[in-house]
This record gives sequence, structure tokens and C-alpha cells, in this order.
Amino acid sequence: MVHRHTVKVRFYELDPYNHVNHSAYVQYFEVGRIEMLEALSFGLEALERAGRQVVVVGIETRFLRPAGPGDELVVETEIREVRRATVRWSQRILRGDEVLATQLVDAAMTDADGRPTRWLPQLLDALAAYERA
Amino acid sequence: MVHRHTVKVRFYELDPYNHVNHSAYVQYFEVGRIEMLEALSFGLEALERAGRQVVVVGIETRFLRPAGPGDELVVETEIREVRRATVRWSQRILRGDEVLATQLVDAAMTDADGRPTRWLPQLLDALAAYERA
Amino acid sequence: MVHRHTVKVRFYELDPYNHVNHSAYVQYFEVGRIEMLEALSFGLEALERAGRQVVVVGIETRFLRPAGPGDELVVETEIREVRRATVRWSQRILRGDEVLATQLVDAAMTDADGRPTRWLPQLLDALAAYERA
Amino acid sequence: MVHRHTVKVRFYELDPYNHVNHSAYVQYFEVGRIEMLEALSFGLEALERAGRQVVVVGIETRFLRPAGPGDELVVETEIREVRRATVRWSQRILRGDEVLATQLVDAAMTDADGRPTRWLPQLLDALAAYERA
Repeated sequence: MVHRHTVKVRFYELDPYNHVNHSAYVQYFEVGRIEMLEALSFGLEALERAGRQVVVVGIETRFLRPAGPGDELVVETEIREVRRATVRWSQRILRGDEVLATQLVDAAMTDADGRPTRWLPQLLDALAAYERA
Repeated sequence: MVHRHTVKVRFYELDPYNHVNHSAYVQYFEVGRIEMLEALSFGLEALERAGRQVVVVGIETRFLRPAGPGDELVVETEIREVRRATVRWSQRILRGDEVLATQLVDAAMTDADGRPTRWLPQLLDALAAYERA
Repeated sequence: MVHRHTVKVRFYELDPYNHVNHSAYVQYFEVGRIEMLEALSFGLEALERAGRQVVVVGIETRFLRPAGPGDELVVETEIREVRRATVRWSQRILRGDEVLATQLVDAAMTDADGRPTRWLPQLLDALAAYERA
Repeated sequence: MVHRHTVKVRFYELDPYNHVNHSAYVQYFEVGRIEMLEALSFGLEALERAGRQVVVVGIETRFLRPAGPGDELVVETEIREVRRATVRWSQRILRGDEVLATQLVDAAMTDADGRPTRWLPQLLDALAAYERA
């Protein structure tokens, strides 16, 4: 299953070339992952209650086409791979049928003091719903 | 005494008109106030140790001239007035001799749970150094 | 008539106090105004074709209650007053029935080179739909 | 030669974990590259006069350690490789001797209409000064 979340380009995210700055895509991708976690009942507050934080350790992002004023974009998010210490997400940003950007994200789990820890088994179970076939 | 802090315009803060978005000025003004608090040894970590937060309750901002690519700006910060519950800051952003923006800021003090509280007397003493003549 | 637009708090807009930074409210208010202009067929591209820019010259913002993780907010936007050189907007941010922030905005119109100019009469006509009773 | 530029963490860039959000690192890296281009007299205005834009087509970023309140960071920027269509930058963010993040950036050159074009030979000559040994 693919998680989908819609974001609309905001004026202040546009640069002098009338394009969305590449760092704003990185922010949209984060919004997509957090919306997925919320949909699974593992939003920030639930994670905090469990004493856990999700920490991004690496991203690999391709910027294929520019987004512009007023564009409505869809952020697609899937789980690509569950490893011992990190979960790898796979994401895309689309405008209609056009893919504007793709991203691989490796995220680790830490405790409330920022020390690396195993992923919560219940969260891994929940994420499986979005695992890529 | 006037507190001065230099910020340089960043590319991603520019909008399609090649001007700094007005919300970025609000961010520059915040940077100026926090630098002043740090200069007085009341940075965020010191405030946290004291169990206090500085919370902005109101701003009144005039945008007089646009800032553009590569501009180096000076944020000037003074204390305008100490009231019972709030401290009023007075700020300006300059590019050389030109005033680009002015701002009045009313800030309150809260405890760690966000409940309004009196300003720390030691902080009020320290702020007096920057009180407007 | 009041224009309403929904924004959802994004993780990166939260500060160490777990509250939306005050500059993000200023950005939400901008989103609300631009959505209103688009709804009236005077979005950025239409304004550009007409050789016009809307420029914020002043804001007066009250921050009444903090917004937090996952909050869904409604930005309400009305026209308060049309003056010779500026239009005054009146805006609120709500979470359900609670008012989190209010803002008055004065905006001027410039030509493509940033020189002050009269507001387009067709735009003033359109804005009248959102004029406060 | 390595280009170095100092940035200071801003309060609004901190997230609820009291860490700089990962998208802010991507912004710091952009600041570093643009400062390098300015140092070589190929800032945004010079590029605009030459009818050229530098467009990021891909990034690969590792986030190794968190940055926190008040941290002063150094962005190091080098040219890793000049290819036919893209230039690959190699960057690091340091706090003192600690490496907080690394990034590879592939950037393309376009004309003023966003069409891919060859890199300006004078710019490639200038960038050679920062080529990694």
C-alpha cells in the first residue's frame, strides 16, 4: 500500500526562479512520513509517550522537475526495507502523473535522550502495511 | 545601548520578486532578540535551567524597503518599556544607513508549563543595559 | 463573507517548546491571503500578467494561544478597509472555536519594477466580496 | 582548496527535540555553495546577467550528529567532479572538529528559461580553485 498526502505550494517556498526551493521538497517529504506515522497511530505524541524519537540519518533525493506557484502536489510514501537499525522509506512527489522528485530516507530510532535503540516492534508491525510489494 | 547583530540574506529566503519574504524579517528580528539574550547570559539554555520561556505575544512590523540577494543586514534591538507582564522590544533592520523594517515586540514570560509568570528580576536588571534612553 | 483556508501544522514548524514558532503564523496568514486572491482569479500568475505585485507594508499580529503538533488550523481572511494606497486585511487563525492569533495587514500594490501604483479596479471590485460587514 | 562559511543555528530552526531539523542542514549547504559562487564572482546576479541558473538535481546527505541551540557551524564546500552536464559538490558541516553532516550535490546549469545548457567555461575555470585534490 502507498500512503498519499497532498500539499499545496506556498508562496514563501518559491525562489527567484519562481520554483520551489529544493529544501522545501525535503520538508514536504518529512510531512508525508509524519502523516503516515499519524495514520498508523504513531504520531509524535504517541512516540513521545513511548519514549521514542524517529531520527533521519540519511536522504538521497532526486529533483526531476520544478514545482511552481499554486501547484498541488501528492507525496507518496512507502516502506522499502526494514534493517536492524534503520528503516528505509521510499518517497515520490507528483503533480498529476508527473514525478517531480524521488527520495530514499534512512531513519533510526532513539530513546528520549537521543541514544540509538531498536525500533518498537508494534511500529514495525504497523509499517508493514505500507511495505513495498 | 543598542544591540546589533548581522545577518546575511539567504537564497531560499528570496521570493519570486527577488525580495526577502516578509516572514523572514520576522525571523531576523527573533534572531536579534535571542542574540541579545545570549549576550546577557540569558540564552535559551540558561532560561531553561531557570524554568522560564520567553513568549512573543504581539508584533507590530513595518516593511519599508525590500532586501535582496546577498544583502548584509544589521538587526538593531533595544528595550523600549518594561511593564508588569510584558517587555516591549523596539527593533530595526538596516542595510547600511537605510532602514528596511521596524518592529515593536511584546513578550511575556512563562514557566516551563507555559503558564504566565513574572519576569526574572535578574533578567530585567540585565535588560536595563539595552533600555532606550 | 469570510474566506477560510485550512492549514495543518508541520513538524519542522514546531520549536523546542513544542509550539509553532510565531513566524510560521505570519506564513499561514500569507497563505490565507494568497488563497483568497486565487479564489478571486487574482493569483500570482494573473497579477504577473497584469504587471502587478501585492506587497505587504505592515502587520500587527497578536499571538493568543500556542498551536502544537498535528493541529489543524483555519485561517480566516476578510477585507477590513480599502484606502487610497493600501488595502487592510483582517485575519484570524482558529483551532476549532479557539482563536489562536489575529492579524491586521496593510498591503500596497506595485508595478513589475516595484514602484507603488493604484490598485487594479477589477481586483478592488473582486475583494469587495470579502469586505467586512 | 576548501571553501568555508560560518552559520549560526537560529532558534526557529530547532525542532521539539531541541535539534536542528534535517531540512535546515540542506539549507545551510545551499548557503555554503552560494557563498562559494559569490567568492568566485559568480553570485546570483552575475549568473542572471549571463542568463544562467544553477539547479540542484540531486543530493545525498548523511546526518551524523545533531546540532543544537546556539551552535556555530562551519560549512565546508569543495568541487568533487566536473561532468558533462553536472558538477558534483562535496560538502561537510562541522562544529569544531566534529562532522555533523556530509553531502554530495549534483547541480546542472540551465538558461533563463530553465532549459539545460553547458556550464559556463569561465565558471568551470573558477570552480577549479576549489577542486578536491
